[in-house]
Amino acid sequence: MEFANTPKPPYYAVIFSSVRSKDDNGYNDMSDQIEALVKQQPGYLGMESARNEIGITVCYWKDMESIINWSKDLKHQEAKHKGKAFWYESYKVRISKVEMEY
Amino acid sequence: MEFANTPKPPYYAVIFSSVRSKDDNGYNDMSDQIEALVKQQPGYLGMESARNEIGITVCYWKDMESIINWSKDLKHQEAKHKGKAFWYESYKVRISKVEMEY
Repeated sequence: MEFANTPKPPYYAVIFSSVRSKDDNGYNDMSDQIEALVKQQPGYLGMESARNEIGITVCYWKDMESIINWSKDLKHQEAKHKGKAFWYESYKVRISKVEMEY
Repeated sequence: MEFANTPKPPYYAVIFSSVRSKDDNGYNDMSDQIEALVKQQPGYLGMESARNEIGITVCYWKDMESIINWSKDLKHQEAKHKGKAFWYESYKVRISKVEMEY
């Protein structure tokens, strides 16, 4: 995996921290689908992901408008509902504006 | 590991993405020392960390001033120099202002 090839700041980062539930419940299928979908979104800049005890996925976006548009995507909304119910014991989402990169 | 118990935004997130080098070179010792040190810094709010192919550590801070002060810490500077030389094949640091959390 490579680092996300983000442009000169400012841009946005959505930091998704999660603890997975014990069962798969179709997680991997949906996760692949969502990943394919998000990469087609206008304003998507890249993604970085790691997991052991907890998982952290950081998704980079051109601007807040792109994040809001993605949040309205129906498949994404479905994944969020299922995520809450089946895939994650708990999670936290933080939306931040990247001001510096080096 | 628990999620960082961050306050109501705004606050800051330093996103550190890295690929480790193959040898330890004292990484674990220094990593423990730095972790103990950072937790004592004024303005430190918490940390989340995960690693498999790449590593992502997100460190949360009250404000930019706290981040700048930490960057001037001598032990931290030493770790940065060694990090570049010995511990990481590559890394990227992004400093961002968290605007929303849920």
